[in-house]
Amino acid sequence: MRLFDDPLAPNCRRVRIFLAEKGVDIPRETVEIAKKQHKTEEYRQINPLALVPALELDDGRRLCESVAICRYVEEALQPEPNLFGAEPFERAKIEQWQRHMEFEILLLNAQVFRNTHPFWQGRIPQAPDYGEMCRKASAKRYEWLNNELANREYIAGDRFSIADITALVGIDFGRISNIRIQPEQTHLQRWYDAVSSRPSAKA
Amino acid sequence: MRLFDDPLAPNCRRVRIFLAEKGVDIPRETVEIAKKQHKTEEYRQINPLALVPALELDDGRRLCESVAICRYVEEALQPEPNLFGAEPFERAKIEQWQRHMEFEILLLNAQVFRNTHPFWQGRIPQAPDYGEMCRKASAKRYEWLNNELANREYIAGDRFSIADITALVGIDFGRISNIRIQPEQTHLQRWYDAVSSRPSAKA
Repeated sequence: MRLFDDPLAPNCRRVRIFLAEKGVDIPRETVEIAKKQHKTEEYRQINPLALVPALELDDGRRLCESVAICRYVEEALQPEPNLFGAEPFERAKIEQWQRHMEFEILLLNAQVFRNTHPFWQGRIPQAPDYGEMCRKASAKRYEWLNNELANREYIAGDRFSIADITALVGIDFGRISNIRIQPEQTHLQRWYDAVSSRPSAKA
Repeated sequence: MRLFDDPLAPNCRRVRIFLAEKGVDIPRETVEIAKKQHKTEEYRQINPLALVPALELDDGRRLCESVAICRYVEEALQPEPNLFGAEPFERAKIEQWQRHMEFEILLLNAQVFRNTHPFWQGRIPQAPDYGEMCRKASAKRYEWLNNELANREYIAGDRFSIADITALVGIDFGRISNIRIQPEQTHLQRWYDAVSSRPSAKA
């Protein structure tokens, strides 16, 4: 197997943290988006959408999407510790929260970065007004998430799951656009301190 | 059980099509976004994020997200016909394509609608330049998807899955913004004709 990975891309970090939590090691090949290595003809043979991460199995089959890779790792390679849920309702609840963290935190923060950050100027089309709309929306979502975390330890319940990984990556990714947990958001900060101090956070 | 449903919202249609494919009937309560019924204090007790759909179980537990609801239906209520995949690789592959259809088709078309359509003027903040960027991106994704469908019958492989539901809903949702399958996109049109003629498409 080989994992195509950009050390700076948030979706790649999700997979690395997931693997670290599982204790699974997969050889990596670096594909740096900043150097346009994902746009080469060679990499498009791996993933026609030119996205990282991608996982190639020993038999040549591929998975070209971060959550799909994580699900395969959990179901085919290393079931424990369980990060997608153990029984149907918990699995659905974790899916709900994983997707909430994706659309309400990570995606919003990514849109701020893509549409307002100087790094992307001249590299991709930007819509700064949309980026600023996302910045405001993200701030509201941090308030909402802080309230949610008043009553439970982790994002999807009383234990760590893939939803926490998505949230951690999303919140860390916001920092490049100066989107930060506010001092009064003490529940969110308590959760952040806990998950970011896990060894997997360095992956 | 009760399903909170907006007859016009694409994420609600995903759940209705999924239930129709399964032959599962769940009583519905209508929450019309156009009438701001999702923003009431009463509905926020159901879903603090004010999103539809939401599923409330008989014991009061809730799932507030479309794919989470579908996964619960498949795993807890009616496993057949299988729409999320049967073995680990197929399950991961369907997850990949479900998410590709979500981010590359449905989300782009939704952003065009939200950011450019007169329906939303004065109701939500709009960024028309971002909407037009998404319109261009969506057109490229239709070309990509047409190429993908040259070699297989359905979105994620040789059988119908939840990825087809997301793609169908995404493409139909594009029509309100005049985003359409192009005459030369014959593989995409062949697929569209097949999935939109299934009885579930009317759900």
